[in-house]
Amino acid sequence: MDVRELAAQVRLGRPRAVARLISLVENAAENIAEYSTGNAAGNAARAGGEGGAEPPGANRVLREVMADLATGAARPYTARVIGLTGAPGVGKSTSTGMLIRAFRRRGSRVGVLAVDPSSPFTGGALLGDRVRMQEHATDPEVFIRSMSSRGHLGGLAWATPQALRVLEAAGCDVILVETVGVGQAEVDVARLADTTVVILAPGMGDGVQAAKAGILEVADVLVVNKADRDGVQATVRELRNMTGLAEPPWRPPIVTTVASREEGVDDLTAALDKHQAYLDESGEGRRRRLARARDEIEAIALARLRSRFAGLHGDRLDALATRLLDAGTDPYTAADDLLAALR
Amino acid sequence: MDVRELAAQVRLGRPRAVARLISLVENAAENIAEYSTGNAAGNAARAGGEGGAEPPGANRVLREVMADLATGAARPYTARVIGLTGAPGVGKSTSTGMLIRAFRRRGSRVGVLAVDPSSPFTGGALLGDRVRMQEHATDPEVFIRSMSSRGHLGGLAWATPQALRVLEAAGCDVILVETVGVGQAEVDVARLADTTVVILAPGMGDGVQAAKAGILEVADVLVVNKADRDGVQATVRELRNMTGLAEPPWRPPIVTTVASREEGVDDLTAALDKHQAYLDESGEGRRRRLARARDEIEAIALARLRSRFAGLHGDRLDALATRLLDAGTDPYTAADDLLAALR
Repeated sequence: MDVRELAAQVRLGRPRAVARLISLVENAAENIAEYSTGNAAGNAARAGGEGGAEPPGANRVLREVMADLATGAARPYTARVIGLTGAPGVGKSTSTGMLIRAFRRRGSRVGVLAVDPSSPFTGGALLGDRVRMQEHATDPEVFIRSMSSRGHLGGLAWATPQALRVLEAAGCDVILVETVGVGQAEVDVARLADTTVVILAPGMGDGVQAAKAGILEVADVLVVNKADRDGVQATVRELRNMTGLAEPPWRPPIVTTVASREEGVDDLTAALDKHQAYLDESGEGRRRRLARARDEIEAIALARLRSRFAGLHGDRLDALATRLLDAGTDPYTAADDLLAALR
Repeated sequence: MDVRELAAQVRLGRPRAVARLISLVENAAENIAEYSTGNAAGNAARAGGEGGAEPPGANRVLREVMADLATGAARPYTARVIGLTGAPGVGKSTSTGMLIRAFRRRGSRVGVLAVDPSSPFTGGALLGDRVRMQEHATDPEVFIRSMSSRGHLGGLAWATPQALRVLEAAGCDVILVETVGVGQAEVDVARLADTTVVILAPGMGDGVQAAKAGILEVADVLVVNKADRDGVQATVRELRNMTGLAEPPWRPPIVTTVASREEGVDDLTAALDKHQAYLDESGEGRRRRLARARDEIEAIALARLRSRFAGLHGDRLDALATRLLDAGTDPYTAADDLLAALR
């Protein structure tokens, strides 16, 4: 399939073309991750890659298709991106499933990007979950893809926005990004999403405490799932105390759900819609998407620079690292040397 | 205090000098994070920073002190770095406390770096934990620092190796890096550490499942903490099935502990020592430290490039992001434009 044909097929929402293009994105991201491992395999891959440039064939195709999808008749950054995050065991995948059905009932085309090793989509979790997700496997209006979280030093930062773009080009109105998270992962998903949903469960003990630190920074909507369990009121109360400190104009609403029984789904979609209206009216939506576009451009530029580091003659970075280890240089001077060698 | 004096004081292990230098590292990392936010505050900070360079005064000091510490009489990359990671609620901080005491009994000087929002060191957790950690506050041979995990797009990757270096220069023989983690955080801590300890607890349900995906990739030692709870044997059995698949020569041992009562501490330190011996004998230790040195240099170089992006005339990155949002360019071409503007 040639480049133009692949782009056209993606635009028509053909699942195989969508899958193929996201695979190209993922492979390219893995190459980026490899550049920074400094191991033998990475070196071998580099040696074969024309002075450390990305494997030329694959990435030329990727680049051309992405350019085709991004411009012209495209409407980039128009799909509603909803991030779902929370500690393991709170029911993120069940909640994702519930939202897939809710948006399908509205007639939306739904994309799902799972960057969560515990997600049934990425193959890490219970068989029961995986079976439960298969109901969407035959729905042509639902696109589900997992992304490996292997992309150290920017691999995921590079790949995720591009995967979103592919799903968007395939006509998805809503894209759910599911990620496991406390700490950094929460912040990362929040930067990708228009609306970030942080999911908790009652009786998680330290988990709730742990989630606290980062929650107000990233949550647009808070969900207490498994609300049929003991301790739900205590958890809600605790969250209410926290959100009471949130700055106007947006104070994250707290929604209780039992996702496994679809309870609370209307409250959740209402909260999501209210946040979307806030984003549209306040200009915050545009601001967030601008930040996302910045991140996307920067991640590509940095990945390109990193591949140039790796392609420097005689593996300059390895030589500098050895000198650093043997106290023959300091890290700042080594970084200067590396940058100077680029020129 | 001038630069030489600060370096000398750090070398003498003076807590205030150590704290001051790590604060310089943290502030510099926050500036790096700010460069990528694209918000008004970031723009203002940039405008004041001499065409987007890092705030010159602070970073000149940092750079000179770090150079002083890295070379000459320094013995960089000699402290034993032990990473502790696991889901919220498994008892990471209690385990960290147990290891602090174990290494203190051996006469080691111990550094602790907490990059975990749920850690009592970073102020996110239960009061009881925080009080429990105060026992070390008056011990001149224990240095405890928290790092914020705010550093999006490489901020933490930039800051953590440098904070390790400061603790090393202060004479710490052992540095414990505590991080909350499933997924990416696990991988990141593993890249920093000589030995990575993944902590689990029985009866965490999905938590164990969630941890599975990444565990074999990063764990050098597996700990099942809270081993007085139900289900410990099932968890150990499950882990044993997983580690049975690990490649020789190193198969991660599984240690059971009740960290709150110091049970299993000898088994844990024995497992850590065995892994250290393996690292020394196999050359794997040197290989890991070389990879760490590469990461350190690369993170500094990339941060410098990112600050140059931000310093480009008229905020070129913002302009490109706007064009991308309005379908006037594609992300690859925008990245090329950004890199071209650097020259």
